[in-house]
Amino acid sequence: MTLPPNPEALLQAMQAIVGPTGCLSAAADTEPFVTDYRRIYHGKSPLVVLPATTEQVSQVMAWCYAHDVPVVPQGGNTSLMGGAVPDDSGTAIVISLKRMNRVLAIDTVNDTMTLEAGVTLSAARAAAEDSRRLFPLRIGSEGSCQIGGNLSTNAGGTAVLRYGNMRDLVLGIEVVLPDGRIFSSLKGLRKDNTGYDLKHLFVGAEGTLGIITGAVLKLMPQPRATSVAFVAVQNPDAAVKLLGEARALSGQAVTAFELISAPALDLVLGYLGDVPSPLEGRHDWMVLIELTSGTDEESLNATLMQILEAGLEQQWVVDAAVASSLADVQQFWRIREEISDAQTRTGGSIKCDVSVPLSRVAPFIEQASAAVLALEPATRMVIYGHMGDGNVHFNPLRPAERDAKDFLAQWYKPVSDLVDGLAHAENGSISAEHGIGVAKRDDLTKYKSAVELELMWQVKRALDPKNLLNPGRVLPRID
Amino acid sequence: MTLPPNPEALLQAMQAIVGPTGCLSAAADTEPFVTDYRRIYHGKSPLVVLPATTEQVSQVMAWCYAHDVPVVPQGGNTSLMGGAVPDDSGTAIVISLKRMNRVLAIDTVNDTMTLEAGVTLSAARAAAEDSRRLFPLRIGSEGSCQIGGNLSTNAGGTAVLRYGNMRDLVLGIEVVLPDGRIFSSLKGLRKDNTGYDLKHLFVGAEGTLGIITGAVLKLMPQPRATSVAFVAVQNPDAAVKLLGEARALSGQAVTAFELISAPALDLVLGYLGDVPSPLEGRHDWMVLIELTSGTDEESLNATLMQILEAGLEQQWVVDAAVASSLADVQQFWRIREEISDAQTRTGGSIKCDVSVPLSRVAPFIEQASAAVLALEPATRMVIYGHMGDGNVHFNPLRPAERDAKDFLAQWYKPVSDLVDGLAHAENGSISAEHGIGVAKRDDLTKYKSAVELELMWQVKRALDPKNLLNPGRVLPRID
Repeated sequence: MTLPPNPEALLQAMQAIVGPTGCLSAAADTEPFVTDYRRIYHGKSPLVVLPATTEQVSQVMAWCYAHDVPVVPQGGNTSLMGGAVPDDSGTAIVISLKRMNRVLAIDTVNDTMTLEAGVTLSAARAAAEDSRRLFPLRIGSEGSCQIGGNLSTNAGGTAVLRYGNMRDLVLGIEVVLPDGRIFSSLKGLRKDNTGYDLKHLFVGAEGTLGIITGAVLKLMPQPRATSVAFVAVQNPDAAVKLLGEARALSGQAVTAFELISAPALDLVLGYLGDVPSPLEGRHDWMVLIELTSGTDEESLNATLMQILEAGLEQQWVVDAAVASSLADVQQFWRIREEISDAQTRTGGSIKCDVSVPLSRVAPFIEQASAAVLALEPATRMVIYGHMGDGNVHFNPLRPAERDAKDFLAQWYKPVSDLVDGLAHAENGSISAEHGIGVAKRDDLTKYKSAVELELMWQVKRALDPKNLLNPGRVLPRID
Repeated sequence: MTLPPNPEALLQAMQAIVGPTGCLSAAADTEPFVTDYRRIYHGKSPLVVLPATTEQVSQVMAWCYAHDVPVVPQGGNTSLMGGAVPDDSGTAIVISLKRMNRVLAIDTVNDTMTLEAGVTLSAARAAAEDSRRLFPLRIGSEGSCQIGGNLSTNAGGTAVLRYGNMRDLVLGIEVVLPDGRIFSSLKGLRKDNTGYDLKHLFVGAEGTLGIITGAVLKLMPQPRATSVAFVAVQNPDAAVKLLGEARALSGQAVTAFELISAPALDLVLGYLGDVPSPLEGRHDWMVLIELTSGTDEESLNATLMQILEAGLEQQWVVDAAVASSLADVQQFWRIREEISDAQTRTGGSIKCDVSVPLSRVAPFIEQASAAVLALEPATRMVIYGHMGDGNVHFNPLRPAERDAKDFLAQWYKPVSDLVDGLAHAENGSISAEHGIGVAKRDDLTKYKSAVELELMWQVKRALDPKNLLNPGRVLPRID
């Protein structure tokens, strides 16, 4: 067992590396780093270290390795799974990357951007835009989350259908290993078959194998045209069919295809207050469709109309509102994007972030909804998300009159187990984009084979033999 | 040191697992499995085993692990780097996946295809086509190469610009580990963040970490329209600029952008005999551009004309031939695709498969050409390939009157070292798509950091502690 290091020695050693302003040890200063932003996970840490360079991260890690000090790497601290805050043992220091926030280079011929890991997603997007390029990752926390965290969690969001997950958007990385060695491969190559592609080990590892300190990311052409519609559909099966038709008719123009259930729309409109529904009347199921293209607006709009007409003809589409201005586009998206905050404000949401093959989305929603409603009939079935990726945020919400804490105490565990189990039975995932952290760590023993868990540990032990990096996260204990 | 097992015991054990017809031990039978198709690498093996199921692969591996028998996994045996044939120690058996050639399932809603690793690429493409889908990987060896080999080498080819490498086209895999355990994750999910994404360890590992036995691959919509042009450009810099313009004007329609130098065209036209150049007169540099889209032919042709006109106006384009029939399209592509065979037939090619950032392609070609011509002025600069990916097949060819063997004996090593060194200096790759095998293994010590090589070995030792899988391939010896 590792004993906490002498706090004075630790502080002195870290100050010698990062300077006095790079160390936070007062409880009031460390508080924002040891509690997640939803205030669900509360940890303890003697010290938060804020290195300014990769070299400093390396020195910090080398010292910690020599002294058996566990380290929790932290980006924007927006994990939903408790993956970025320390546990309550008080043994681990936090390394925050927030001072490493420089965009180092943009190459508009190679369409790449090189940056430090602490750049926020919104700053990265803005830097790309300044060079008339698109960095396509789009998630709700973009103002706070950082590129290093986006990589470590393989972030997804609302543009994955067109552009892929974060893993698909990275060409090169720089990583500090648990013993302080620096693995630097900041290359902007589309093709490089020279041995193991090590970056994929660190992407999605949630900081358990190394600390990502820099990256080379892909840039895309900015779309010249955007067409958006808010569409009432018959049911999820009709939505899947509509997506198939949209792809067939538009090539790769479908950028987002987001499902929204009636209770999700009710909730978010109640939360926003001043925003009307884009559609008249109430509909059980809706989708937000976004097409983008590099060509003209007119032909893209024509394609969207073609898709909607085909959908009406097949009776998949019940009604549709097409955005006729940028203000409409923003309003439609605001409705979609504020669902998450509306849930947080309301309280009493059971958050299941599952994915299944697209061909199984509709039956999955039907089965899982029926199963939840059989347990608690007045539950509001807030179901929404990235249907185009087979990824549904399936978030049963407490009945309106029910106390949030009571509801969660009674149902969180049985309902999420039920929903995860049904997704798993469809050859699906129990965490499509939110990761594992500590929240779902022990569930993995139910849903992964023994061989897969052994392999994860073989890799972990090979790279972090002292188990110092983000200990207790991602990997469940196995025999 | 591992001694060769008693041949009788080995044969009996293997026959008990795969049946007598699944074992080849006569020299005449094993010959095609121990020599690569270019007849450069000649190895020895006491036995070629042809399992018919994943379970059999598992049993074979478990036996070999227990008896310290090295194993070389083999797909279509089309490696250019000696990666798929055993060394000449005669200790390793070959496991050929060719009997595992079933397409197991196609899901046209999820757009995925599940298959065994021994399915040839052309069979996989045909199965997709039968379901009116596209499996987009396109490489010259498609009739022989197998999906397992394509994954193990992260195959690239002429459609990477649009669709990515093999790594980008796989969603799930099944692998037999060195000790015989089966890691099965045949999931068709676009999003799954539940721990380490282990499939990326095996993709591109050239069979050194496990034997891929099955996969779930992505399918794409079939393009409805194709427009192709054969274009003379001012120089490589003009070609890069033309590509930028093509992408800006067409969105993601640019599917292929292949560079061809004058000596490459001369060579292939001489080889084909009956095929005329698509262009009048002789030009120093040409590109083959292919656009595809899901919409109509007419608007795609209009886009291609727009690109060519912009290119002419900027004086990047000197002349252009637009394919006006399917026969033209096939003829243009035939010219591009037969360059490789034309080189093989002629003999005396120094094959460098390098990539650099797109912004450095033109200066790289200029520098590297000048350096080679300074050594041997009459060398024919056969330069062609996937410029859109920054990937150039830079293949200096012997002077016409020079003997092939002499030329290679004198220049292969110095010229490839020179070219690789220049690519590396541009932050490029010494093997963009062909992999490492044994041919480039020891070069890695020059071009990879000590940390990167150590990491590769940490992973190798963790997964294959007895170093039994494809030993002596990919990983250079380090201290």
